[in-house]
Amino acid sequence: MKVLGVVVEYNPFHNGHLYHLKSAKKLVKPDFTIAVMSGNFCQRGEPAIVNKFARAKMALLNGIDVVLEIPTVYALQDAGGFAFGSVGLMHKLGLVTDIVFGSESADISFLEKISKILYENSKEFDYLIKRELKKGLSYPNARKFALQKFLKTDLDTIKKLENSNDILGIEYIKAIFKYNSNIKYHVIKRVGAKYNEQNLSGKFSSATAIRNAIKFEKNIKEYVPESTYLILKDEFEKGRGPVFLENLEQFILSEFRLKARENLENIYGFSEGLDKRFIDSANISTNLKEFIENIKAKRFTFSRIRRLIFHAIFNFEKNYMEFSNKLGPQYARVLGFTTKGQEFLSYAKKKSTIPIITNPSLKNKILKDVLKNSERKWDFNISLYNWQFEKDILASNIYTLFYPNSSQRKSGMDFRKPIIIEG
Amino acid sequence: MKVLGVVVEYNPFHNGHLYHLKSAKKLVKPDFTIAVMSGNFCQRGEPAIVNKFARAKMALLNGIDVVLEIPTVYALQDAGGFAFGSVGLMHKLGLVTDIVFGSESADISFLEKISKILYENSKEFDYLIKRELKKGLSYPNARKFALQKFLKTDLDTIKKLENSNDILGIEYIKAIFKYNSNIKYHVIKRVGAKYNEQNLSGKFSSATAIRNAIKFEKNIKEYVPESTYLILKDEFEKGRGPVFLENLEQFILSEFRLKARENLENIYGFSEGLDKRFIDSANISTNLKEFIENIKAKRFTFSRIRRLIFHAIFNFEKNYMEFSNKLGPQYARVLGFTTKGQEFLSYAKKKSTIPIITNPSLKNKILKDVLKNSERKWDFNISLYNWQFEKDILASNIYTLFYPNSSQRKSGMDFRKPIIIEG
Repeated sequence: MKVLGVVVEYNPFHNGHLYHLKSAKKLVKPDFTIAVMSGNFCQRGEPAIVNKFARAKMALLNGIDVVLEIPTVYALQDAGGFAFGSVGLMHKLGLVTDIVFGSESADISFLEKISKILYENSKEFDYLIKRELKKGLSYPNARKFALQKFLKTDLDTIKKLENSNDILGIEYIKAIFKYNSNIKYHVIKRVGAKYNEQNLSGKFSSATAIRNAIKFEKNIKEYVPESTYLILKDEFEKGRGPVFLENLEQFILSEFRLKARENLENIYGFSEGLDKRFIDSANISTNLKEFIENIKAKRFTFSRIRRLIFHAIFNFEKNYMEFSNKLGPQYARVLGFTTKGQEFLSYAKKKSTIPIITNPSLKNKILKDVLKNSERKWDFNISLYNWQFEKDILASNIYTLFYPNSSQRKSGMDFRKPIIIEG
Repeated sequence: MKVLGVVVEYNPFHNGHLYHLKSAKKLVKPDFTIAVMSGNFCQRGEPAIVNKFARAKMALLNGIDVVLEIPTVYALQDAGGFAFGSVGLMHKLGLVTDIVFGSESADISFLEKISKILYENSKEFDYLIKRELKKGLSYPNARKFALQKFLKTDLDTIKKLENSNDILGIEYIKAIFKYNSNIKYHVIKRVGAKYNEQNLSGKFSSATAIRNAIKFEKNIKEYVPESTYLILKDEFEKGRGPVFLENLEQFILSEFRLKARENLENIYGFSEGLDKRFIDSANISTNLKEFIENIKAKRFTFSRIRRLIFHAIFNFEKNYMEFSNKLGPQYARVLGFTTKGQEFLSYAKKKSTIPIITNPSLKNKILKDVLKNSERKWDFNISLYNWQFEKDILASNIYTLFYPNSSQRKSGMDFRKPIIIEG
C-alpha cells in the first residue's frame, strides 16, 4: 500500500497547491493521500485566514483523503520544529510511505547531502552557527554562512538553498533521519509565485498575496479552485473570517504591557534579551506593526517575533517544548476525511504508535482504549499528550474570539466532529 | 486653616457635581478644596469615559484646587475599600479638616449611628452578614438584613439606607473611625437623578445617563458645565475617548479564556467559586454582556463582577490587597492643581505622612528625600508604595490601548507632569 503524505498550511488552498498535489500524486501513484496541516495558527506566526475545519474541507474537496492537524506547538515553530512535528505525525502513523515537497532548487541530491551533514554533525554545526549568530546575523543567514564554511564551498552554491521551500525541505529530510523513518522523500519544482510574494501574479499566486487581496477586498476567484472560493465566501458571510493578525492588535499589546520579564523567563524562545525587547516594545508602541518593528534586530526574523508572541500568549513552557522537540507529536488529530479516507483511518488505527483522535470529546476514553492495547509499541507520554492537546484547544478558543461576527465567538471548536466528505 | 475634601469620580464632571461642590463650599467655607478622584478605572468596574488628566482638568476648572488620584487598588473596590482608600488619602495628607458627601437620606445622625455600630461590632456584624450571604443574598442585601436584625428595627428604617450615596457615606464615616481621624463630616441632600439612573432627566442628569448619551452620540451640552463639554469634545476629537468597557470585550474574554483556576487562586476577591464561574463563562460567552450575565448569581452584583475582571487582569494579589486594606494609600499622587492649589501643596508637603508625588519620574528620588526626613512620622511601607503605584501605571497602560485613535495608544501616561490651571 502506497500512502502519500504532504505537509501543508492551505492558508488558503490555491491553484499552486492543487498543482503540487496533482504532480505529487502523478509521481507517487498512491493508494491514499493524507495532509498534515497547521491548525488555527500558522508557521508565519499568524492566525489562519479561516479556521482549520474550513481549510480541511478545501483539502478534502481537492484530492486529500485525510487531514490531520499539526499540533499548535509545532505549527508555531521555526522550520526545524515545524518539520519535526509534521514528519513525526506521518512517521508515527505508521503507514505513510512517501512524502513530496515543493522545492525551488528541486535538487534532491544536494538537499539530501546538506541534510545529512546537518544531521550527522549537528554539534559541530551548532557551534559554527552560534559563532555566526554572535556576529548579529539572523538564524537563516547564520546557517548559510556556517554551511559555507563547513562545506568549504562558494556562497553561490549555498545561496541555492536560501528559499523557504528548500529550507523546509532540508528540515523534512533531517526529521526523517531523526525518526529513523523509512518514508521516502521526493521534490517537485515549485511553480508560480514565491512563498512570500506579496503581490498577485496570475493564476499561480502565493497564499500571502491571496490573503493580501482578501484584506483589500479584491476578488480572488481566479487564484483558487472554485471549492475554496465557495468555502471562503461562506465563512466570510457567516462572519467567521477573514481573521488577520491585526485583529489581535490591542489584545497582543495588552498582553505584553501586562507582562513582566519573569513571566517570560519560562517561555520557550525568549532568549538573547528578547523578553526585555518584547516588554519594552509593547510599552512604546501604539500598534502591532510598530510593536514588531521595535523588537526587530538583524538577528531576529519577523516570523520568529510573531511566533514568539503566541509562545508567550499560549504559555509554551520551555520544559514541555523541549520534551515535544525530542518526542514528536503525541496524537494524530483528525480534522476531516473523505469516505475513501475513512478506509485509510481504519488501517491507521491498527498501526499508529500514537492515539488517533477523531472525536475529541472522547479524548480520555481514547487514551484508555489505547492503553489497554499493550501489544502495540506506543510512542507517546500521557502528560505531554494532554499538554499538547490543551494548547490546540487554547489556540482555537482565542482564535474564534477574533471572528468578525461576535455571535460566532464561541469556544470549544475542538470538540466538534471531523468534516466528512463523500468521495 | 479649613480644608474641604470631596471624594469623586467625575466621570464626567456634570451639573450635579457642580451643585454639590458649591453647596459643600457654602457649608464649610474652606480656604482650600481638594478632590480625591478615581483614576482611569472607576468603582463600577469600568474604564473612565476619558482619562484621569482630562477629568482632573474638569475639576480644576470648576472649583477644585488640587486633584489627587485614589490609587487604582482602592478605586476598583467595593464601597468599603473605596472609602478606606479615599478617606485615607485625605487623612494622611494631614490638612483636610472637613469632608462633605452627597446623601439620599441626608440624615447624618442616623448614618453616624449605623457607622458606629458597624465599626464597633465589626466581628459580630460580619458573622450576621455571612449568615445572610449563605442564603444567597448579594452583599448589599445581606448587609441590609443583618443590620435589621442587629438593630432590631423594621425594614423601612433600614431601607432608607439602600441608596448608593448613603451606603458610601456610611463607609466614609467608618473609615474616619478606622483612621481615628479628626476630619469632620457633613452631608448634602443629593439632588437630581439617582447615581445609577440610566436615562437623562434634565439639567441634573446622572453620570451614567450622560455616558449613555455619549455612547449614542447625543448632545450632552445641557447636562455638564461648558468647560466639561469642551474638554470632552477635545478628547474625543483627538481620539482619546470615549472609552467604554465594551471596547475591551475581546481582550477581557481572551484573558479569561487563557486563565486556569490556579491563576485566580491568588487574586483578591475570587472566593465562593467565582474563579470557576469566570473561566467557564469566558468559554461559553461570545460577548461581554453574556460573559457577565453568565457569571451573575443573586449573591454577586454586576459591579462586583466587573471590578473582579480588573482584579484579575491587573493581578491584584491577595496579600498586597489585604495589606492595602490595613494600611491605606501609600502616596498622594497629584493629577493637577490650580495656582491656589499650589500653595496648599506646599503646606501639605510639610504635613503629609505619605510621600506626595507630583512628578512620577522622580518617584524614587521623592522616596529618598522622604526617608531623609526622619522627624516626620511617616505612615507608609516601601514595598507597598511601589506595588500600589505599579498598579496605577499598569492600569493607565492598558487604558490607553483602548483609545479610539490608535496613534494615541502610548503607554507611560503616568509619567507626565500634572495639569496646572491659573486661578
